[in-house]
Amino acid sequence: MATVLMQEMTWPAFADHMKRGTPVLVPVGATEQHGYHMPLGVDAYLPTAVSTGIAKAVGAIVAPTINYGYKSQPKMGGGPAFPGTTSFDASTLISAVRDVLRDLIRHGARKIAVINGHYENQMFTIEAIELVRRDAAMLGVTDLTIFRCEYWDFTRKDLLAKLFPAGFPGYDLEHAAILETSMMLHVRPDLVDMARLANDPPAKFPPYETFPVRDGWVPPSGVLSPAGTADAEKGRLLMENYVEDIGAALRKEFALA
Amino acid sequence: MATVLMQEMTWPAFADHMKRGTPVLVPVGATEQHGYHMPLGVDAYLPTAVSTGIAKAVGAIVAPTINYGYKSQPKMGGGPAFPGTTSFDASTLISAVRDVLRDLIRHGARKIAVINGHYENQMFTIEAIELVRRDAAMLGVTDLTIFRCEYWDFTRKDLLAKLFPAGFPGYDLEHAAILETSMMLHVRPDLVDMARLANDPPAKFPPYETFPVRDGWVPPSGVLSPAGTADAEKGRLLMENYVEDIGAALRKEFALA
Amino acid sequence: MATVLMQEMTWPAFADHMKRGTPVLVPVGATEQHGYHMPLGVDAYLPTAVSTGIAKAVGAIVAPTINYGYKSQPKMGGGPAFPGTTSFDASTLISAVRDVLRDLIRHGARKIAVINGHYENQMFTIEAIELVRRDAAMLGVTDLTIFRCEYWDFTRKDLLAKLFPAGFPGYDLEHAAILETSMMLHVRPDLVDMARLANDPPAKFPPYETFPVRDGWVPPSGVLSPAGTADAEKGRLLMENYVEDIGAALRKEFALA
Amino acid sequence: MATVLMQEMTWPAFADHMKRGTPVLVPVGATEQHGYHMPLGVDAYLPTAVSTGIAKAVGAIVAPTINYGYKSQPKMGGGPAFPGTTSFDASTLISAVRDVLRDLIRHGARKIAVINGHYENQMFTIEAIELVRRDAAMLGVTDLTIFRCEYWDFTRKDLLAKLFPAGFPGYDLEHAAILETSMMLHVRPDLVDMARLANDPPAKFPPYETFPVRDGWVPPSGVLSPAGTADAEKGRLLMENYVEDIGAALRKEFALA
Amino acid sequence: MATVLMQEMTWPAFADHMKRGTPVLVPVGATEQHGYHMPLGVDAYLPTAVSTGIAKAVGAIVAPTINYGYKSQPKMGGGPAFPGTTSFDASTLISAVRDVLRDLIRHGARKIAVINGHYENQMFTIEAIELVRRDAAMLGVTDLTIFRCEYWDFTRKDLLAKLFPAGFPGYDLEHAAILETSMMLHVRPDLVDMARLANDPPAKFPPYETFPVRDGWVPPSGVLSPAGTADAEKGRLLMENYVEDIGAALRKEFALA
Amino acid sequence: MATVLMQEMTWPAFADHMKRGTPVLVPVGATEQHGYHMPLGVDAYLPTAVSTGIAKAVGAIVAPTINYGYKSQPKMGGGPAFPGTTSFDASTLISAVRDVLRDLIRHGARKIAVINGHYENQMFTIEAIELVRRDAAMLGVTDLTIFRCEYWDFTRKDLLAKLFPAGFPGYDLEHAAILETSMMLHVRPDLVDMARLANDPPAKFPPYETFPVRDGWVPPSGVLSPAGTADAEKGRLLMENYVEDIGAALRKEFALA
Repeated sequence: MATVLMQEMTWPAFADHMKRGTPVLVPVGATEQHGYHMPLGVDAYLPTAVSTGIAKAVGAIVAPTINYGYKSQPKMGGGPAFPGTTSFDASTLISAVRDVLRDLIRHGARKIAVINGHYENQMFTIEAIELVRRDAAMLGVTDLTIFRCEYWDFTRKDLLAKLFPAGFPGYDLEHAAILETSMMLHVRPDLVDMARLANDPPAKFPPYETFPVRDGWVPPSGVLSPAGTADAEKGRLLMENYVEDIGAALRKEFALA
Repeated sequence: MATVLMQEMTWPAFADHMKRGTPVLVPVGATEQHGYHMPLGVDAYLPTAVSTGIAKAVGAIVAPTINYGYKSQPKMGGGPAFPGTTSFDASTLISAVRDVLRDLIRHGARKIAVINGHYENQMFTIEAIELVRRDAAMLGVTDLTIFRCEYWDFTRKDLLAKLFPAGFPGYDLEHAAILETSMMLHVRPDLVDMARLANDPPAKFPPYETFPVRDGWVPPSGVLSPAGTADAEKGRLLMENYVEDIGAALRKEFALA
Repeated sequence: MATVLMQEMTWPAFADHMKRGTPVLVPVGATEQHGYHMPLGVDAYLPTAVSTGIAKAVGAIVAPTINYGYKSQPKMGGGPAFPGTTSFDASTLISAVRDVLRDLIRHGARKIAVINGHYENQMFTIEAIELVRRDAAMLGVTDLTIFRCEYWDFTRKDLLAKLFPAGFPGYDLEHAAILETSMMLHVRPDLVDMARLANDPPAKFPPYETFPVRDGWVPPSGVLSPAGTADAEKGRLLMENYVEDIGAALRKEFALA
Repeated sequence: MATVLMQEMTWPAFADHMKRGTPVLVPVGATEQHGYHMPLGVDAYLPTAVSTGIAKAVGAIVAPTINYGYKSQPKMGGGPAFPGTTSFDASTLISAVRDVLRDLIRHGARKIAVINGHYENQMFTIEAIELVRRDAAMLGVTDLTIFRCEYWDFTRKDLLAKLFPAGFPGYDLEHAAILETSMMLHVRPDLVDMARLANDPPAKFPPYETFPVRDGWVPPSGVLSPAGTADAEKGRLLMENYVEDIGAALRKEFALA
Repeated sequence: MATVLMQEMTWPAFADHMKRGTPVLVPVGATEQHGYHMPLGVDAYLPTAVSTGIAKAVGAIVAPTINYGYKSQPKMGGGPAFPGTTSFDASTLISAVRDVLRDLIRHGARKIAVINGHYENQMFTIEAIELVRRDAAMLGVTDLTIFRCEYWDFTRKDLLAKLFPAGFPGYDLEHAAILETSMMLHVRPDLVDMARLANDPPAKFPPYETFPVRDGWVPPSGVLSPAGTADAEKGRLLMENYVEDIGAALRKEFALA
Repeated sequence: MATVLMQEMTWPAFADHMKRGTPVLVPVGATEQHGYHMPLGVDAYLPTAVSTGIAKAVGAIVAPTINYGYKSQPKMGGGPAFPGTTSFDASTLISAVRDVLRDLIRHGARKIAVINGHYENQMFTIEAIELVRRDAAMLGVTDLTIFRCEYWDFTRKDLLAKLFPAGFPGYDLEHAAILETSMMLHVRPDLVDMARLANDPPAKFPPYETFPVRDGWVPPSGVLSPAGTADAEKGRLLMENYVEDIGAALRKEFALA
């Protein structure tokens, strides 16, 4: 089976896809701390893996991952103070996504999906899309559909209930926790060391932020809630969930066969 | 042996590197056509592989690759018209490299090397470095050394002579040709299909450019000079050359043990 | 009692505040549709009123409101297609907040609170704060504390329970709904016409976005969930809640007497 | 009578205006010192009040005021050193006005007037208009008329003669002086304290600027010429003058009934 | 006598100036229509000539002229519609002046004068200076004085009276008129053709602008008021006036011997 | 014969050129050290002189020179540390060239040539052209041809052989050396002092850069290779070469008579 990754594809292969109207998925990641037990690349690996799975399922292709994202925030990912968390300014991230989308549109792509793997990227990917739609309108492109999601928002309620028997505490505290750890144990088990998993209690944040952040708000490990029950099987189920359900959404919105 | 890739590393492992003064290499790539026989990701794969080799040799680490570069130019890489060639505007590339370097400096990195794999990126990586040095000076950082190169500029004369028995035609026309094809046959042979290699004669360019480019200047395949003598052994020798000689340069400039 | 609004204050009065270390609150709003029954200025009026209440309570002052915010999104505020929704690009909003904060810091302010009244502004106000902290660091300012919140995140659980006897559906769908309508009935009853309140059922959104948005996702009125039980007394309680609790947070974080 | 202020208007009311081709006035202000006797908001209050008066007279509507303007200059408004003078960078002001105009055009506005209340804003509002016209042209909008003025330039000669029996010294020195003080005594008398009016002689500036400004160029109060003869009746006459004459100009240029 | 023009100077000669604290003058021009009788370069030639004269008189040097300025406005210079009027966007002009000043400061210049020859440039050169002062402060430079003027503001009252026996109509309408024509007849008589001078009456503008400009506001020639009495002797007197008086101002402000 | 310089031309003369489809050449220069024997303006003088020669030969006109270029690099021009080397940031240079081209296109120019005189400008002039082509496309301009070159790339092989009897060392080291010195001796002999020519051996650079540059890489004079054999006759031949051959290329590419 031919690759779905643009990076692995020759230009004539890509040109064929454009002629056939193949959708293009653009994974947007980050380089951010993920506790003692997971690597800095989690937020790039996961949307790339999810995108690859979807692409295979629906007949799409995957653009090269944007490996850096917006600055980590304490309440979402531990914050920028963790060594290794290396980020783009807002304007850089907006421009990066905008440029990639603009060039894909130039090549003929009219069905583009931005698959975000880092919560802090959300609004900046939206602005990139708003701007590229303005650019496209100025060039007379009128038949463009852009899809955008944080992949975890597709987690099915019954799976959530299974993963969090005591009740789902919300995506806010899921940084480096059960969902991401399970996914990584499925996708890149070689990069997860459950033996080093921190035993921190869940982070507790007030309903505001201070800059600089106060000592004690973020657990020392950077893990925002306990991840001890994560396992590869849960990761497999999550991946299956995302591939099926995001795939179904793309089929519907892009009117795919 | 521990990984040298930041993406595969936990934040405490990265923090240890910062405490020890480990140099950080930043590969800057592109998504650009490379003929019928090689994929769009060549300019990202190769500087990543070279950087990884150097990092292992000298005790450095490698930041996540910037997978998009400046717009391909006809005389350097075939030009932006080839389907799949997907690029950043100049300001985006400058900002992307600047932001990554600025955050590495914030984490304590004082020995940073930008390893460029796409000729068109040269001046924009220079501007990124000039700007981040200004930023650093404004924050009082005075002990910073930044190294920058196009990796191919380290090709030894004797190896060049061996690879080009009829005389080296210059790096200008080496896009998707003997050097890059050999390197890819060494690094990612699964992504090279020599059977599909175009048989175009070398491109001939006048000493100027026109926008739009004229028909016939760029060979239909996008390969700027014949690559039929490329092989994996040549790729191995080139890789060895780069790892040894860029490594030696880094040891000298960063005063490594 | 002297005014707390910078706009109503002479410069010597402001200068006195700076000498005394008075905190400055910066309300950031928007110009956005709020259904058939409320005006375009809701997201500017409310954070201004909340800020004014807090300022009186804790001895702070209030900078002039930024009357335009980031582009409305369908799932948060109905989307940009509603006539009258008039917005800043991301870069403009970031720069606007950054410039105001930078000048306040120049005047000597060291305790600044950004009070946001439009959900879409969240990440852009964060970037403004991150950038102004970088600017300040470059100028040697090291004793700066910036506080930031969406005011509604301080709603007490018991008050939420009272307002939503059938369970709180989440802030997501609260655009132009019970909370905002009650607040406006308290703050500017002259601008609310409950007779024109739409009877739309709650909006239902999928876990993703499309650009352009699909017909039928956003109710015709722009109100995202029923607001019929809103009243001025609820607004009074909410205002009291925000003034007391944000005030308490500021007292703590700014170490006020 | 229905409100003319966009902030007080529902979106269907705004949509009706767009359908009828109603002109939109955009007041651009500043937050700037105005002596011991007037507040920091003068340059925002006055163009808003003038715009509101005109809108009622000619059947236009008024967009939310941009409350911050370009940096005060010593010869025009006392300079940035006065506490409380809080400003946008040039690029921010240009973008703010451009974005508001662009969105109004998107909603269908084709007759837009920028009413400036702060001399330093002049050229930046011009650039905003030049850029938005370029944007509009790129989107195929060709029937756009934009009007721009500093409201005080409409002061009738006979009224000037009456206000300045000893001869009008020029608008240059009118900062916080007779015109603005009279207008404020008419519009917001509660915010003017004539008892605190400084008794400084007129400022004398050389035909150049220095950065930093020299001591003694700007009177300590920030008032650039004596304002002791200001009164509310003069303010009423000025307001009447502006409403009638700017209104007449708009009727002519926008071909209103 | 050694040249005062940086362009004509070797770097060691420039370095000597920096060691001695020599002031640097930066002429900022434009490329703009100047009627049927004068060339597009007037606004670049004149500030360059004035700067050169001053430099010789006070022992300063002159940086290369910025040959493009901000967009011509109808009421100041005829407007952008005249063929040949070729301009920078505001952000470009601000950056151009800022960059030149920043690099001069880097070389050690602490006494810098911006000599403006195009009215529309005024506020943008001010912003450039404000920004470069911020940059310099971030780098710890505290002993910087920047002088800025439009050279014509130094015209002595008695000379004005002589040139305009019927009363000076104001600088507003002096575009391509008596002052500039006389100066050009003195500085570059080869580029003035008085035989082609248009006989248009003075332009009459209302106290506002429209975009697009209305037919008939700007005389067909682009000359805003009659220039028939211009002659080279008047130009000589004006030049003498400017060199002496701007020179005296620089001596005072830069504390020159 | 009428002038070919836009700066010396009236607007009606320029308008005539636009009606006739005259090509416009835009010289882009720099302000950069050129050794002890040549002035800072070499990189502005030479492309201006070359452009003027070509314009006369082919019936083109020459826009005002952009006198500042991108930051000098040690391996190309000695580097930014030489006093007097005064440069634009990348974004400023890109915008400057883009704005000039955009306005020329607005006036009707459809055949534009960018003649670069400073190696470091190459990629930034390319980006300016790429961006202005995007702008033009958004405005529906489709018949635009832009030509771009570094003028020295047209040096004929036989002339090179004559100038460098011992073999041409490459353009890399030609900064302030035989080619530029000969050209200046032809164009502006008054600004060359061969008596002060440094006797430095050729610079030797490694195949990489460090920031900051290492001591000893750049000869103290800033001349990168010996220029003792330069003379005016060689300059005359070079100028003839460029005028003829760039002229011929323009005739071909612009389909001139």
